[in-house]
Amino acid sequence: MKNIILTAVALLVGISVHAQQVLGPGTGIVSPEINADNTVTFRYYNPKAVTVQISGDFLPSQKITYMMEGQERVWEAPGRADLVEHNGLWTYTSAPLEGELYSYTLYVDGQKMMDPSNIYQNRDIATWTNIFTISTEKGDKGWYYQVNDTPHGNVSKVWYDSPTLSMQRRMTVYTPAGYEKNTKTKYPVLYLLHGSGGDEDAWADLGRAVQILDNLIAEGKAEPMIMVMPNGVYFNQAAPGVAVNMFQPTMTNSRSQSTVEVENSFPDIIKYIESNYRVKKDKNSRAVAGLSMGGRQSAALSRKYPTMFGYVGMFSGVVPPEENDKALEAVFAAQPKLYWIACGKTDGVMANSLLLKEYCESKGYPVSFYESEGGHIWRNWREYLTIFAQKLFK
Amino acid sequence: MKNIILTAVALLVGISVHAQQVLGPGTGIVSPEINADNTVTFRYYNPKAVTVQISGDFLPSQKITYMMEGQERVWEAPGRADLVEHNGLWTYTSAPLEGELYSYTLYVDGQKMMDPSNIYQNRDIATWTNIFTISTEKGDKGWYYQVNDTPHGNVSKVWYDSPTLSMQRRMTVYTPAGYEKNTKTKYPVLYLLHGSGGDEDAWADLGRAVQILDNLIAEGKAEPMIMVMPNGVYFNQAAPGVAVNMFQPTMTNSRSQSTVEVENSFPDIIKYIESNYRVKKDKNSRAVAGLSMGGRQSAALSRKYPTMFGYVGMFSGVVPPEENDKALEAVFAAQPKLYWIACGKTDGVMANSLLLKEYCESKGYPVSFYESEGGHIWRNWREYLTIFAQKLFK
Repeated sequence: MKNIILTAVALLVGISVHAQQVLGPGTGIVSPEINADNTVTFRYYNPKAVTVQISGDFLPSQKITYMMEGQERVWEAPGRADLVEHNGLWTYTSAPLEGELYSYTLYVDGQKMMDPSNIYQNRDIATWTNIFTISTEKGDKGWYYQVNDTPHGNVSKVWYDSPTLSMQRRMTVYTPAGYEKNTKTKYPVLYLLHGSGGDEDAWADLGRAVQILDNLIAEGKAEPMIMVMPNGVYFNQAAPGVAVNMFQPTMTNSRSQSTVEVENSFPDIIKYIESNYRVKKDKNSRAVAGLSMGGRQSAALSRKYPTMFGYVGMFSGVVPPEENDKALEAVFAAQPKLYWIACGKTDGVMANSLLLKEYCESKGYPVSFYESEGGHIWRNWREYLTIFAQKLFK
Repeated sequence: MKNIILTAVALLVGISVHAQQVLGPGTGIVSPEINADNTVTFRYYNPKAVTVQISGDFLPSQKITYMMEGQERVWEAPGRADLVEHNGLWTYTSAPLEGELYSYTLYVDGQKMMDPSNIYQNRDIATWTNIFTISTEKGDKGWYYQVNDTPHGNVSKVWYDSPTLSMQRRMTVYTPAGYEKNTKTKYPVLYLLHGSGGDEDAWADLGRAVQILDNLIAEGKAEPMIMVMPNGVYFNQAAPGVAVNMFQPTMTNSRSQSTVEVENSFPDIIKYIESNYRVKKDKNSRAVAGLSMGGRQSAALSRKYPTMFGYVGMFSGVVPPEENDKALEAVFAAQPKLYWIACGKTDGVMANSLLLKEYCESKGYPVSFYESEGGHIWRNWREYLTIFAQKLFK
C-alpha cells in the first residue's frame, strides 16, 4: 500500500517517463500480483477514468461479430472484466488460474493500453500485450514456460550468408547448457519456424522456446539439442529493430513466393549451422517443425528435401489439401522417425490437418496426430513444442 | 488515410489484442511518420479523449517542482505538446529534428500510455517508452544509432560460471562481422558496464551499442572488437524475463556491496571470454568503460586490477571524491593508453567528474576529459560510446 500511495504522489506531480536514472523506476504499483491461492490481482491508478476493463486470455472468451470485405464474420476474442475503483485505484482479482503463461491488456474508457506497472510484455506481429506466468506445481505448463533454477542454454542472434538469396539474414540459435564445456560432444538440431507475421525472435519470445528446452533438458525429458529459429520470410532480412528501416510488421501470405524463397534457400541455413556449431549431420539428428505458416514450410521442406529431416512437425500447419500428393511418397520412402501433425479443435486449419492425416493413412504412411483444445493460438504452439521436443533424437 | 479508416472500423467492432495471427497486425495507423523535411507526425485515434499530449525528449524540456523527503526538488522533464483532434484522430507534428534517437510517450487525459501504433519501444529500468530514429545525413548521430546496410556482428546472451560468487550469471557478447570467417584473427575486447537499475541488456537495447559498433567498424572508424556487457549487480543473476522470478527492476545503490561483489568477481568474466572467444589477452587489448554506476565500477576495476585494462572510460561516472587517492598511483604507473572522463554540463555528477580530473592533473596523470551538453541521460551515453570506441586498440 505504501508503494501505491507513493505512486499516486508521483503521478500528481507529473513525473514523467524519462526519469528512471534520476527518480527511480516504474509506477510503484504492484500489478499483476499472484496471490497464494493462484488468483491474480491487477491494479491500475487513474482517478479520471470512467470505466476500466481488463481483457485477458484467462477470462471466458467472447464472440465478436464484425464485417470484413462485405461479409459478416465471427471472431472469438479474449474475454473482458470490469475493474472496481476506490480512491482512483482500480482493481480486479481473477478466479484461481492453472499453470500457464497468460496475456492481457487494459481498456481505459474503451481505449486499449498496456498495464503501466507490468514491464513484462510480448510483441505479436505489431501488437504488444502484457504477460505473466503462473505455476501451481512443478511440471505444469507454467513451470515449463518460466525460468527455473536450472542450467541455462545460450541464445545467439547470428547473421548468415544466403548465397541463394544474395543477402545476409538473421536467425536465433539456442545452444543447450554445457555446449561450451563439452567440447567433444556433437548435438542434434531442431529447426523451428515461426508463423505469418512472425520473425526469428518469435519462438524465443512469444513461444518460450528457450525456457521450454532448458526445463525439458534439465529434467532429462528432452535430449540436449541445438535449436535454430530462422526468419521464414524472404522480404524480411531480420526482425523489427535490427533490420534496415523501422518497418511495421504485417501478416505474410503463408504460400507466397516470399516464404517459398526461404524454403529454396534452406540449405544455406543448414550449411551455416553445420559449419559453425558442433552438430550431428545425419538425417535422424535433424528435425524441422513450425507453427501455422511455418508448419506449411516444414511440410514443404520435407517434400523438397525428403532425406534431410528425420522428424517433421506441423503445429496448426497451414497445409493445403492439393499438397497431399505424390511428393509425400519420397518423404515416407525415407522413413522419417516422426511425422507429427498437431492442431486445436476449434482451429480453422483443423479441416486441412485432418485431410493430411487421412491422406497419409490412406497411403499407409505412419503419421502421429495430436488434438488439443482451443484454436490458432500461441498457447497451443507452446504446448506442441513441449510435447514434440520430448519425442526427438531418442 | 485508407489505413486510418480501416483502423477506426477495427476499433469500433472491438477487435482486440490477441488477434494478430487471425486478423492482422496493429492499429493500422502510421505513427510516428517521419516527413521529408524531418518533421515528425504522431497520430492517435480516440474519439472519447478530452486531451491528448505528447511528452518527448525532442520538445523543450520543462522544470517540474515536487516534494521528496520533505524537501522541494526541481526536475527537468521532457517537454509536452498538445495533439489536435479531428474526427477522433489526434495529431501532432514536431519541428524539424536533428539526427538522433528520440523517445516519447502519450498522455491521454493526463494518463501516460504508449503510442499503440509504434511497436518500437525501450525499457529503462521499469518504464517503457516509444522510440524512433532520424538521420538527416550519413554520419550524424541518428545514422550511427540506426541499422544500416552494413555487415552485422552477432549478439549472444551467454551464461558464465562465477566461482567467486558461486552462481551462473548472464551477459551479452557482441562479436564483430567476420568473426566466424576470420578463424585465425584474434580480437581486442571492450567490457562495457550499465548504470544503476540496468542489466546485461541495457547497452544493447537502450544504448544502441550493437548498431554503433557495426557502423563504426563498417566505416573503418573503430577497430573490429568484441564487446562484453555483463550484469553489474550481484543480486541480479540476469535481466528481467530470463531470471528466476518475474521481478520488477529497481535502482541499485551504485556503491553497494552488490556492485562491489561484481568487481571482485570480474576475473571470472574475463576468464570466460578469454576461454571461449578468440581474443587478444594483453592489457592494451582490453578496455573497460561504463555509464554512471558502471563508470564508478570501471574506475574501481582499474584501481583493483591496474595492469588489466589499457583503456578506462567513465561516462557520467559516479566516482566519489574519496576515491581520488593513492590507489590511482598504480593505475597510472601501468601507463594506460587512455583514461577518459566524459560528463554532461548539467549532470549532477559533473562536480565529481571535475574533481577526479583535477586530482589526476595535480599528480601529473594524463587524463582526457570530454564535456557534452545535457545531463545524466542515455543520449549522452550513446554519444560517449561512439567517441570512446573510436579511440580504442589503435
